[in-house]
Amino acid sequence: MTEKTALTPAGHTAPPARFSHGVRKGNILQVAGQVGFLPAAEGEAPTPAGPTLREQTLQTLANVEAVLTAGGASWDDVMMIRVYLTDTAHFAEMNEIYDAYFADLTAPPAARTTVYVGLPAGLLVEIDAMAVLD
Amino acid sequence: MTEKTALTPAGHTAPPARFSHGVRKGNILQVAGQVGFLPAAEGEAPTPAGPTLREQTLQTLANVEAVLTAGGASWDDVMMIRVYLTDTAHFAEMNEIYDAYFADLTAPPAARTTVYVGLPAGLLVEIDAMAVLD
Amino acid sequence: MTEKTALTPAGHTAPPARFSHGVRKGNILQVAGQVGFLPAAEGEAPTPAGPTLREQTLQTLANVEAVLTAGGASWDDVMMIRVYLTDTAHFAEMNEIYDAYFADLTAPPAARTTVYVGLPAGLLVEIDAMAVLD
Repeated sequence: MTEKTALTPAGHTAPPARFSHGVRKGNILQVAGQVGFLPAAEGEAPTPAGPTLREQTLQTLANVEAVLTAGGASWDDVMMIRVYLTDTAHFAEMNEIYDAYFADLTAPPAARTTVYVGLPAGLLVEIDAMAVLD
Repeated sequence: MTEKTALTPAGHTAPPARFSHGVRKGNILQVAGQVGFLPAAEGEAPTPAGPTLREQTLQTLANVEAVLTAGGASWDDVMMIRVYLTDTAHFAEMNEIYDAYFADLTAPPAARTTVYVGLPAGLLVEIDAMAVLD
Repeated sequence: MTEKTALTPAGHTAPPARFSHGVRKGNILQVAGQVGFLPAAEGEAPTPAGPTLREQTLQTLANVEAVLTAGGASWDDVMMIRVYLTDTAHFAEMNEIYDAYFADLTAPPAARTTVYVGLPAGLLVEIDAMAVLD
C-alpha cells in the first residue's frame, strides 16, 4: 500500500548512479533532478536537446513530466518545482518558456524556488519536482 | 479534501511567473522561495527591504511566515527550511538573526540546509520551507 | 500522533543555529543538510573526517543515516537525496562512493538531485534527505 516504487519513463537515459528518476510511495511522488537530455540512444552518451536555454528547458520539463506520468501524476499534482539555472541573465527567458509550458494548468501552479548554481559543462538548467497525489 | 490550494498573502508581490507563493494539499504545505521584498506597491517593481543581510533576512522570514499563515500553518509545523545565501561570510550573522527570530518556537526547530548560490543582483538571501500540518 | 519530533543522533555536533538535525512528523522524516563532520568532541570545533571527497562523502552519508535511524527509518524509506558538491570534477568519484554505499538497498533507490554550490571552507560535500515511512 505504501511500497516505494521506482518511476522509469521509457526512453530516459540511465541514471549515472544508484538513484531513480522518480519514486512514489503512498501519495508522495518525488522527481529527481532532470536535465535537457534527449531520449537515450543505445551506445551513445546522454545528449542535451541543444545548446540553448529554450531547447534545454523544454526538454527538461518534458523529462519531468514523463516521470510524473509514469507515477500516475500530472503537473496539477505538483507542489514544488525547483529550478536550477547557471546564469541570472536566463531568468526572464526561462520564465517565458515556463509560463507557456504551464498555460493549461487547471489546479493552482506549484510553488517554485529558482537559484543559480554550477552544472556540468553544457547544461544550463536542471529541474526537480515533488507532487502530492489525491 | 485533498484539493491543492494556492496561498497568496495579501501584500505579496505577484510571482514573476506561473507559480504560487505557496500551496497546500491535504496536510502538506510548501512555501516557494521567498526573498526580502517589501509589500507590493502598485506600479512599482519589487523592492528589497534594504541592502543589508539583516533587513533582507527579517523580511524574507516574515514573507515565509505570511505564506504559512495563509495556509493555516505556523513555524511549529515546518519540517524543512532551505536557506540560500550568496556569501559564506554571511553565515554567522544570518544564524544570529535566525535564532532570535525563532526564539519562541514551541515545537522542535525545523531541519535546515544552507548552501551558497547565485541570486539576482541585490538579493543576499532566499528561503523556502515545507510544513506538515497536524 | 502527528507530533513533530527532533532527531538528534548521539555524537552529532550541535547545530550552529536553532534547527534540528532531523525531524519526524507522522510518516514524514526530513534530514537537515549533513556534512562530513566527525562525532563531536567536547570543547572542540566540528572537524571534517578528512580533506578528501571520499572521507567527507562517507562521513556525510553516515551522518545522514544516523538521523534516519534516530527517526526509525532506513535508506529504503528515503524518497529524495540532495547532494551539494563544490566542483563538477567531483561528480564521477562521488557517484562511485555513493553506489558502493548503497549496494545493499532492498527498495528502489531514492530520487536525487546534484548541484554545485559554495560551501564553507574545507567542506566538499553536503547531503540532505527526505523519507516517507510506511
